[in-house]
Amino acid sequence: MTETKKTTIVLFSGDYDKAIAAYIIANGAAAYDHEVTIFHTFWGLNALRKDEHVELKKGFMEKMFGKMMPRGADKMGLSKMNFAGMGPKMIKSVMKKHNVVSLPGLIEMAQEQDVKLVACTMTMDLLGLQKEELMENIDYAGVAAYLADAEDGNVNLFI
Amino acid sequence: MTETKKTTIVLFSGDYDKAIAAYIIANGAAAYDHEVTIFHTFWGLNALRKDEHVELKKGFMEKMFGKMMPRGADKMGLSKMNFAGMGPKMIKSVMKKHNVVSLPGLIEMAQEQDVKLVACTMTMDLLGLQKEELMENIDYAGVAAYLADAEDGNVNLFI
Amino acid sequence: MTETKKTTIVLFSGDYDKAIAAYIIANGAAAYDHEVTIFHTFWGLNALRKDEHVELKKGFMEKMFGKMMPRGADKMGLSKMNFAGMGPKMIKSVMKKHNVVSLPGLIEMAQEQDVKLVACTMTMDLLGLQKEELMENIDYAGVAAYLADAEDGNVNLFI
Repeated sequence: MTETKKTTIVLFSGDYDKAIAAYIIANGAAAYDHEVTIFHTFWGLNALRKDEHVELKKGFMEKMFGKMMPRGADKMGLSKMNFAGMGPKMIKSVMKKHNVVSLPGLIEMAQEQDVKLVACTMTMDLLGLQKEELMENIDYAGVAAYLADAEDGNVNLFI
Repeated sequence: MTETKKTTIVLFSGDYDKAIAAYIIANGAAAYDHEVTIFHTFWGLNALRKDEHVELKKGFMEKMFGKMMPRGADKMGLSKMNFAGMGPKMIKSVMKKHNVVSLPGLIEMAQEQDVKLVACTMTMDLLGLQKEELMENIDYAGVAAYLADAEDGNVNLFI
Repeated sequence: MTETKKTTIVLFSGDYDKAIAAYIIANGAAAYDHEVTIFHTFWGLNALRKDEHVELKKGFMEKMFGKMMPRGADKMGLSKMNFAGMGPKMIKSVMKKHNVVSLPGLIEMAQEQDVKLVACTMTMDLLGLQKEELMENIDYAGVAAYLADAEDGNVNLFI
């Protein structure tokens, strides 16, 4: 009997290109029957945001962060050569041309493959994000749960 | 008998938010009785700098680097939305509001939990940083020592 | 009989300083008889580019990316304090002064130590890079090959 292999990814970055790399590795590992967890923290939480505005009571700081941060995977910028949004358009256009699935598509695929998508509750508090603003069917947890997964992980990455 | 689990983090980044993530994971792992090492290299060394100016003989380049780099954990900028220093103020303010310990506090907590804080001697040389400028009670080592820790590590991250 | 230890690094970043960190860790691990793989993806592919222009048929987007991205390890910028190219000059100057091998030298050393240098074929397609533009004696593979190496890895890093 072979043990199930485990892959965990901390997605800290809010960059479109880094999130693509994270989700491609996650989907690849899931295809090889790894148990996969992506733990979204800090700016990585933006990948899980719904793209519409959600009316919620928030303090001033939380409103500010909410406004300044991209709403959902499709609105994130590049880590390099962002050019005020031109870069992501170029990348999306070549991705389409080469039949690479877009980031929202990669996230959907991850959910279909039972990749566990976790939102870090501590940084949600910090950035003033509430569950109503994030996608359905995700988990909520803290660093303890991440470590419990990672300590048995074969591949643990921080992206 | 169970073996002690090991966590190692290479802290390369000099960003306040990434350093917080590193130290929260490190403190979490230490609380679960992992042996934890944070290996500070390149800009990550700034987290270990004392906040006062230390008078030392240095070459021109070393002086330049010394002046341009933040002096200590409390002066570091954000990886995203730094806004000329406004971003760190906002983050610190929400951290306080949510009772999250500040970065200098997280570093202190790590030392109390016997997290091994290591300064990379090769990059100290490169950036012209001397032991007198860094915090007390830290270790000094090179890549060989890091690898010796990491090759038995359960969780190894590069941040 | 002891098993060969394995180290894998995903080099996503196109920053000179991060690439140095990646190659120093890789060379260190190879010196300790680890089997080492560096999987170059996205901007990390630039470290493998030849420094001369290679005449190739390309579409408009691919030409744009090709022009905007640095041609080879020696032309990459810093993640911090790049100062329009001044930063890399300073770092290279102090590296020379401290007898630290330059990035192109570190890559050569890695090849001599049989570190497996892999170019990610999917992101080559995305960025319009062709084999003729990259260094000799490297491997070409996708995420599946990376995962096959990483799942048995002792040290797996994403840089």
